Amino acid sequence: MRLVFLGTGSGWPTKRRNVSSIALENRGDVILLDCGEGTQREMLYTPISFMKISRILISHFHGDHILGIPGLIQSMALAGREKPLFVAGPDGTEDMVEKLISIGDFKKTFEVQSLSMNDGDTIDAGNLIIRAAAVKHTTTSLAYSVEEKKRPGRFYREKAISLGVPEGPAFGRLQNGEIVVVNGRKIRQDEVTGPPRAGIKIVYSGDTAPCDSVIKLAKGADVLIHEATFSGDMEEKAREFGHSTSIQAAKIAKNAGVKRLILTHISPRYEDTDTLLSEAKAVFEETCLAEDLMEFPVPYDN
Amino acid sequence: MRLVFLGTGSGWPTKRRNVSSIALENRGDVILLDCGEGTQREMLYTPISFMKISRILISHFHGDHILGIPGLIQSMALAGREKPLFVAGPDGTEDMVEKLISIGDFKKTFEVQSLSMNDGDTIDAGNLIIRAAAVKHTTTSLAYSVEEKKRPGRFYREKAISLGVPEGPAFGRLQNGEIVVVNGRKIRQDEVTGPPRAGIKIVYSGDTAPCDSVIKLAKGADVLIHEATFSGDMEEKAREFGHSTSIQAAKIAKNAGVKRLILTHISPRYEDTDTLLSEAKAVFEETCLAEDLMEFPVPYDN
Repeated sequence: MRLVFLGTGSGWPTKRRNVSSIALENRGDVILLDCGEGTQREMLYTPISFMKISRILISHFHGDHILGIPGLIQSMALAGREKPLFVAGPDGTEDMVEKLISIGDFKKTFEVQSLSMNDGDTIDAGNLIIRAAAVKHTTTSLAYSVEEKKRPGRFYREKAISLGVPEGPAFGRLQNGEIVVVNGRKIRQDEVTGPPRAGIKIVYSGDTAPCDSVIKLAKGADVLIHEATFSGDMEEKAREFGHSTSIQAAKIAKNAGVKRLILTHISPRYEDTDTLLSEAKAVFEETCLAEDLMEFPVPYDN
Repeated sequence: MRLVFLGTGSGWPTKRRNVSSIALENRGDVILLDCGEGTQREMLYTPISFMKISRILISHFHGDHILGIPGLIQSMALAGREKPLFVAGPDGTEDMVEKLISIGDFKKTFEVQSLSMNDGDTIDAGNLIIRAAAVKHTTTSLAYSVEEKKRPGRFYREKAISLGVPEGPAFGRLQNGEIVVVNGRKIRQDEVTGPPRAGIKIVYSGDTAPCDSVIKLAKGADVLIHEATFSGDMEEKAREFGHSTSIQAAKIAKNAGVKRLILTHISPRYEDTDTLLSEAKAVFEETCLAEDLMEFPVPYDN
């Protein structure tokens, strides 16, 4: 998997940071986490093709998280897309999507499916499970986890050979869970593979004040992408507007036991982000701060 | 006056050209001609402040001309704007504006006034007259002229002195059309000024096939900004989609007797625009082709 940060700012765009959007690429397919104005143009500077986007997950309905959707959909239509696009978000997403695609005359060439999600709701998306959690913002907001389904354990090739399994298609059948008969003996998958491995898990907080539901959702995640609108000295302002400081984001990451924290949704007031990052690293060392167009492979130590 | 080109492309953004928007600056006030997605961010790279925008003139309701409006208005609100914003466009503009400002939760801090215009309608805007003309596109579309009201003629200072008018406030009163009495004699404005001078006139075609109403609207204009989506060899395609070639735009400029033609709304297919420009210049020499962030003073020979 790979994360590509398309917009890492908050509220309104600056020269350095566009408003919120992150692409999560998985096996050639792309899930977009929010889609602020200008997202389709940001993508031109990355390896992400907008035609590969299968799903958009909306955290909440503030403009800096959704106003790129109409233009993106209209460009997809101009490019002749036929594959349906799936948009999920908080309560009211069906009406919001209806409105977003009703602006401007354009010829729809594909279906836009929409779904409102509530705390705990999941979507089965191929090899992924998407899970929503309610968070604390000034409007109904969701965090999302995107997690690979459990992968079967490592295949013990030598063990299979010692049991007399011939190299070739029988190996694949065993890996897929089928039983293979060798000299009249049934060989099962669990005899030749290790224990099931956990899938990669990525969690995105959206806009939120520090909140237990993000800790719960992010338990053991490979990557937590958490908003850090403000530096530590602005905790009061963060509370007032339903946002987090970078220190608070780091505490969430620590409590959730994630492998890596990425800070995003940085207020336009910060030209220098050294303080935000160093404050967070003092709490949780494995932290980085997102920049527009940053690419981040997951697992990141691959 | 000054034109600043914020987006000179058509349909969808490219790295080089954002979608349509042009700022017309006049005495510190800004009129925006269309407002495609990403316009507010483009503005950050120019001397134009979005808080100075008093009016947006929409040519038509295709996404690449209007999808920057919601984000722009929400950023204005976040910046605490109180001054009303005026949006004019083709039939249905009131409903369209209503829809554009209903997307996303945000706190409105100022009034957005909207107005549908038809062929021949005018707006009295301070020292300017804005006039709309119906053009030929695949949807209802308008061209606009923005013209200074007639300016009084040049003030003949020496003549006033020779008539005994004392230097100082009396000069200003004469220039404003008041009568000044000197030694019992009434002095009128026309005795000390030349003939009224024509105001500067700028015309914007919006999206259109070649059309007589643009020629009529642009008669004698200082600058005609005309769409040139295609090069001459694509005339068939231009006709099909209600657009113009650069040659057709140049013919319009020639027939209207304008001083200068600026080509814009260039199709994303053209990385090299030499052909578009040279074809147009062969018909009308005083032509240039707009690039994003280009600034153009009017009158341009000042």
